Amino acid sequence: MVRRLELEQLYTDYVHCLDADELERWPDFFTDDCFYRITSAENYEAGMPLGLIHATSRNMLKDRVSALREANIYEPQRYRHLVSSIKIVEELGETLDLVANFIVVRTMQEGDMTLFGAGRYVDQVKRQDGIWKFARKTVVLDSRQIDTLLAIPI
Amino acid sequence: MVRRLELEQLYTDYVHCLDADELERWPDFFTDDCFYRITSAENYEAGMPLGLIHATSRNMLKDRVSALREANIYEPQRYRHLVSSIKIVEELGETLDLVANFIVVRTMQEGDMTLFGAGRYVDQVKRQDGIWKFARKTVVLDSRQIDTLLAIPI
Amino acid sequence: MVRRLELEQLYTDYVHCLDADELERWPDFFTDDCFYRITSAENYEAGMPLGLIHATSRNMLKDRVSALREANIYEPQRYRHLVSSIKIVEELGETLDLVANFIVVRTMQEGDMTLFGAGRYVDQVKRQDGIWKFARKTVVLDSRQIDTLLAIPI
Repeated sequence: MVRRLELEQLYTDYVHCLDADELERWPDFFTDDCFYRITSAENYEAGMPLGLIHATSRNMLKDRVSALREANIYEPQRYRHLVSSIKIVEELGETLDLVANFIVVRTMQEGDMTLFGAGRYVDQVKRQDGIWKFARKTVVLDSRQIDTLLAIPI
Repeated sequence: MVRRLELEQLYTDYVHCLDADELERWPDFFTDDCFYRITSAENYEAGMPLGLIHATSRNMLKDRVSALREANIYEPQRYRHLVSSIKIVEELGETLDLVANFIVVRTMQEGDMTLFGAGRYVDQVKRQDGIWKFARKTVVLDSRQIDTLLAIPI
Repeated sequence: MVRRLELEQLYTDYVHCLDADELERWPDFFTDDCFYRITSAENYEAGMPLGLIHATSRNMLKDRVSALREANIYEPQRYRHLVSSIKIVEELGETLDLVANFIVVRTMQEGDMTLFGAGRYVDQVKRQDGIWKFARKTVVLDSRQIDTLLAIPI
């Protein structure tokens, strides 16, 4: 039960980091040799390897954030993540496979709100020095396309 | 507290079953003599008995799934459930009355996402052989109409 | 862990109260000298004090409900709150600072569903006589505008 709450806390901290646009902290949620990918359900089920973002280390996530900041595109929108139904699918010691549902709502500066994305996280977490980190995170979007100029973390 | 987590697990498993389109497993979440109904808030509050789906046994749920599969209508959409605010309203031994909020997002093959439904579950669960099952589930949609050709489980 | 579940229960009860339109019970979730505000993220970050609703006591919340009832505007819409990612930010004895994400879906009588609001709660709760109450609740909407005739509790 303690572990259950710790895992919920991990997802909670993760989405607050993203929604507060504190992207510099985002790579800290991952292990050094993490795998991170955003893809569509269609590609995921077809076993297609590529995606909107594809990273194989935490350093690549840091580079991604730097690129996003340097691009410096004026994008005054806000994102809001809702996460639900976190489920432990498999466990092997301190390594767990998890899935969870999410939606992301985007609000433009003028006030327009849209459903930006819906889908599921297919994740693997590991406990390192008492802290759960994402060893693998695959963001599987229900939609095959996503309305964004620059791929942002989800 | 253990029970609390078990109940959350029940809803979690339930929505992952639906969102993965594993409808053949869906009746297993119910007792043999279950009651299942999808209705509108308007009808629900007026005490109107009928609904979009109305079943009075698990076998009727199985029939429903067979009918959906046989209809074989090409509906390449995906559904994503978000569940929140699960609340125990009443308890009588191992029988509990629960309510919970939900929304369902539908994503069409071309990528269009829409809010398919929003509402609340008004449920009764029973513990059978150590497993919580739905003895009654009433899906109360906030909207009086729902955009679907075939009534699907929610 | 018990406290964690109690806090989740507080948010659960709060949203079911609002979604059931039982607004007369709404002030009971607050301390006598509570602070309640609905504002936009833009104003919140700029430190602007005003908001769509601004109350500095539970009595002002009661007045708000009375005004809403007396206005008696025929507004047959329904609201559905989804809350996610409740996080304890700071604790000082039995006083806790919390944040949580939410979205509100509005359904009009004819069935139209829209995303009414998305944002975060920035709250302070206190335990009084064994019950957690909101001492401060700031509803920070991602959007600067909200489509409503009369400001309703969120």
